[in-house]
Amino acid sequence: MPQKRYLMTPGPTPVPPAVLAAMSLPIVHHRTPGFRAMFEKLLASLQEIYRTANDVLLFTASGTGGMDSAVSNTCSPGDRVLVVSAGNFGERWLSIAAAYGCDVQELRYPWGEVPSPDDVAAKLAEIGGAHAVFLTHSETSTGVVIDLQETAARVRPSGALVVVDAISSLGAVPCDTDAWGLDVVVSGSQKALMTPPGLALASISPAALEASTQATSPRFYFDWAATLESQHEDPPVNPFTPAIPAVLGLDVAVSLLLEEGLEAVFDRHLRLGRAARAGVKALGLDLFSPDDDTSAVVTAVRMPAEIDAGEVIADLFTRFGITMEGGRKELTGKIVRIGHIGYVDVFDVTTQLAALELVLAEAGADVERGVAVTAALGAFEGVRV
Amino acid sequence: MPQKRYLMTPGPTPVPPAVLAAMSLPIVHHRTPGFRAMFEKLLASLQEIYRTANDVLLFTASGTGGMDSAVSNTCSPGDRVLVVSAGNFGERWLSIAAAYGCDVQELRYPWGEVPSPDDVAAKLAEIGGAHAVFLTHSETSTGVVIDLQETAARVRPSGALVVVDAISSLGAVPCDTDAWGLDVVVSGSQKALMTPPGLALASISPAALEASTQATSPRFYFDWAATLESQHEDPPVNPFTPAIPAVLGLDVAVSLLLEEGLEAVFDRHLRLGRAARAGVKALGLDLFSPDDDTSAVVTAVRMPAEIDAGEVIADLFTRFGITMEGGRKELTGKIVRIGHIGYVDVFDVTTQLAALELVLAEAGADVERGVAVTAALGAFEGVRV
Repeated sequence: MPQKRYLMTPGPTPVPPAVLAAMSLPIVHHRTPGFRAMFEKLLASLQEIYRTANDVLLFTASGTGGMDSAVSNTCSPGDRVLVVSAGNFGERWLSIAAAYGCDVQELRYPWGEVPSPDDVAAKLAEIGGAHAVFLTHSETSTGVVIDLQETAARVRPSGALVVVDAISSLGAVPCDTDAWGLDVVVSGSQKALMTPPGLALASISPAALEASTQATSPRFYFDWAATLESQHEDPPVNPFTPAIPAVLGLDVAVSLLLEEGLEAVFDRHLRLGRAARAGVKALGLDLFSPDDDTSAVVTAVRMPAEIDAGEVIADLFTRFGITMEGGRKELTGKIVRIGHIGYVDVFDVTTQLAALELVLAEAGADVERGVAVTAALGAFEGVRV
Repeated sequence: MPQKRYLMTPGPTPVPPAVLAAMSLPIVHHRTPGFRAMFEKLLASLQEIYRTANDVLLFTASGTGGMDSAVSNTCSPGDRVLVVSAGNFGERWLSIAAAYGCDVQELRYPWGEVPSPDDVAAKLAEIGGAHAVFLTHSETSTGVVIDLQETAARVRPSGALVVVDAISSLGAVPCDTDAWGLDVVVSGSQKALMTPPGLALASISPAALEASTQATSPRFYFDWAATLESQHEDPPVNPFTPAIPAVLGLDVAVSLLLEEGLEAVFDRHLRLGRAARAGVKALGLDLFSPDDDTSAVVTAVRMPAEIDAGEVIADLFTRFGITMEGGRKELTGKIVRIGHIGYVDVFDVTTQLAALELVLAEAGADVERGVAVTAALGAFEGVRV
């Protein structure tokens, strides 16, 4: 039998068969009436998922392209911006803001810490305010999800734009764009939205749109005004030929999410996080990500000192066809991440736990055998086993 | 029976079933050994198609994203550049160069004219040289393909970078990147490369790479240095999560092209162009695109004065499920374009001719009935019928 493959990373994530099926149909032109009607429906559905009345712009790009658009459309060289960073994707905001010549002020935490609204407010006061504050809702590299509602509430009185990387959070944990006053929310197709990589999204508030008319950073492909103009045609269209199969796939995926119901989707992710943490603790391993319900996207597990996480990841892939992710940069070799966003149920979590248990035990680690899967199932169902 | 659909546009183009099949497989991670080995092979195959030893960079974006990267990575604000424009995509170079603050000099022709190497050389001399010259190899909006070899030869003594939009030409007509001294050649997945839209390509010469180290235009997502660094890992990888299914699809499509053989592919396109022109003339209609073998990508047909091309396009779609394109901007309503790039054989051309004949005849146009398909088949086979 060919080895089965299990994609368990926190992005790209597994894609439902119905989404893959939609993507495998013969190509249709993006200016045909049928495609444009689908696109109109998709944009409305995305507003539901974003919980916003703002426009949600769609770009053919990795999620990072959406982040790039957020900086180049809102900032001019020399604009003072505050970047809050506690991991790999916070660092990315820093790099992009620096690339566009912003006066970058940093609120930096060791990787794995949880940025606090108080710290953000204090830093903003210390630097005398900022044109924009760049936040990472879910820091996929560490498993940390910030209190976005409270952080935004503390930023808004300063008048700074609130710009959020919600690439791995949107559709997994609540992100109330309008109620929380988020000016720009960037996301991507390949995480909780259960679609292959290739599409970036960005919602833009009236304040962000106003800022974009003043921002002098050069841009063309990611220019919001051009994208808005095309999306405001009736029916909407893309300014440049989009990744047609991915757009069709995203439409199916988003329909599946709305059919399940956003609250049910959030509850599922919450319980998947509980399952992962219960399993990790039953194994006798230490959590790297927070041991609470905020951590509903990815669960980072600290490896025992004598174990190289890279070898664990390699073993899982070679022996069982399981793709899990280790740590990036300073966390390389130190953690293994259990992914549970998107098209994931509890058995995807128990498979990861069971395989991890076996590989670690064989590597001589001191792990408790035979209890993790049961503990995870119990935590998912809300009963202590 | 559900209506059959025929995608006949010069981009997006129809995609071979084997490519769609590769794209419909469960998602694999782009950092797994298998994906990276495939990516290494793909990059080498692209060099064969580009006929270059230069790096070919791959971006998750529409083709326009690749054009954006060509400007932002080679130019600084105020750099004098020459843009040669004779249609919609030449205009795009103008817009991008202007967006990045270049000192844009224009050599502009009425849409449909063929830019000449002499004019380009004269204009370059007139403006005292330029940092870069931006060319459109195949102007998809009009069907014109320039003499790229001779144009590049006339530009090179001036020391200007030769930057080419080969989005609809690469893989359809010869483009000898190294032999012709082309510094940057931008292409896209969705034309002759027989893959859905979503991937942009750019080959970069040593001179272009050197220019990119000096260019001060800000960029992050499309930064060549970051992409090169990742593609130079062993095995290569993408700096940001790529459009995984599209990359897998492109690998299959490119293999199909190389299996057919590049020269055979070019010959097929040459004969498809002949077939389209023979059919159009047999109908008694006027060609808008040149009546010679340079026009091997798309054949633009002038509509009779009393006929609105938009209505013809709409009829073809509604009645027969055939998607063809009309004219853009100043050519709106005036031309219909017969697409023949990519996964196209002569019967795709005869289907377009037969349907066009019927729709035009019913609209009262004076077209010759019953001869176009036979004329096209004869021209394709190289015999006069």
